[in-house]
Amino acid sequence: MNETIQTQLNHRSIRAFKDQALTPEQLNTLYDVARHTSTSMFLQQMTILHLTDPVKRAAVREIGGQPYIGANGDLLIFVADLHRNQLIRHRAGNDDGRLHTLDVFLQAYEDATLAVQNVLTATESMGLGGVILGSINDDPKALIKALNLPPMTFPVLGLQIGVPDQSPQLKPRLPKEWMAFENDYPTDLDWDVMASYDQVVNTYYDLRNANQRIDTFTDQINGAKIATQPLLRDEIIEVLHAQGLALDLELQ
Amino acid sequence: MNETIQTQLNHRSIRAFKDQALTPEQLNTLYDVARHTSTSMFLQQMTILHLTDPVKRAAVREIGGQPYIGANGDLLIFVADLHRNQLIRHRAGNDDGRLHTLDVFLQAYEDATLAVQNVLTATESMGLGGVILGSINDDPKALIKALNLPPMTFPVLGLQIGVPDQSPQLKPRLPKEWMAFENDYPTDLDWDVMASYDQVVNTYYDLRNANQRIDTFTDQINGAKIATQPLLRDEIIEVLHAQGLALDLELQ
Repeated sequence: MNETIQTQLNHRSIRAFKDQALTPEQLNTLYDVARHTSTSMFLQQMTILHLTDPVKRAAVREIGGQPYIGANGDLLIFVADLHRNQLIRHRAGNDDGRLHTLDVFLQAYEDATLAVQNVLTATESMGLGGVILGSINDDPKALIKALNLPPMTFPVLGLQIGVPDQSPQLKPRLPKEWMAFENDYPTDLDWDVMASYDQVVNTYYDLRNANQRIDTFTDQINGAKIATQPLLRDEIIEVLHAQGLALDLELQ
Repeated sequence: MNETIQTQLNHRSIRAFKDQALTPEQLNTLYDVARHTSTSMFLQQMTILHLTDPVKRAAVREIGGQPYIGANGDLLIFVADLHRNQLIRHRAGNDDGRLHTLDVFLQAYEDATLAVQNVLTATESMGLGGVILGSINDDPKALIKALNLPPMTFPVLGLQIGVPDQSPQLKPRLPKEWMAFENDYPTDLDWDVMASYDQVVNTYYDLRNANQRIDTFTDQINGAKIATQPLLRDEIIEVLHAQGLALDLELQ
């Protein structure tokens, strides 16, 4: 097994970092990795903001509700960026074309998300660690305001990276029998396999922290994580539309 | 520079493969890499379909409109899968909770997209190559039908991988000055930098293929790729809703 795959199979989310920022060279390398990530239709609709401003970092931390966000380590925000291509089109006297469609927005969303994973893998390959932050959108209106983002942009994911100050256990993942299939999505999943997996997850939490609530995977899926409740995250669609993105248009 | 980052900076999309399928061991390793990819809120809402059925492969090829899709090489479809967690909830007597929201759908979309990049990097680290296929959704209704996917699932991206039968040049990407910023999204981008990049892109196409139309980057953004036109891709939102996904709900 090569080094890259070893790094990938060894992935843990790191949420505690030493008080040591990345070097400019490291950051530069990560930007190069981001730049060389696949991009839908070569539209290159992804932009990275590196947050060093303590006010902005605190704002993102407050929105995400996690003390480690914008604490030690470097904080990157990966933005789906349709503003840049709009600028290019306007400068040439063109209209916005398909930029306001859900289709082109999703392409930008993919560009940003692919780059997040590529940068995280690169980070881990350097012996550093990181955690992907979906929680930056726990209050999407506040986030757009805090980052002062222009129309036609949307912050997809954050990535907090740095020198690990913890060494968590590998988190057990769904068995292949439940997530990879040949040709057909199955109609008969094996619940005994899930029961075994639940037991493995239970043991993982048990060993990780005696003070942690001990859950199986299915307990979590049946619990609060996706229980019916209103969240500010449901304003994502409103924010997208206010940004001019993912509109339901009839183009002729 | 370590091997992983070398692999990442060396990324080219490969669209011609030798007539040689991946070994079961290789495929298994790639599934393990997919399983160990970060997943939003540990919901694990991603499923991979490996298409070996010639009928299904031909259907995806026809939808994507590219002869290399489902030709030589292995074809994987990465699915945003909220069906699995719905099954788990129903089995325990629970309702669907937030599974029909755009929020939770986007989390699944991220899970699938992150896994695509992780698997592509692993593939390239093995000395193989691949190309991410956004074009599988050029006719989203036909794709859902061809793959016979259940409700609460949506095919996000395809990935065609295998032994490369071509050796394309590295495609020049947007300079850092246009895609990575500290703290603030800039209001004054340097158009001279873009003009230089345009020249580099022009030279790249010139060297790549004498028969290819020679474009700059801005020419492409100003051209047909995102010009106003109706596409079947605009049915994505209709298909999502028909699948029970990304609905505009008021949850109480």
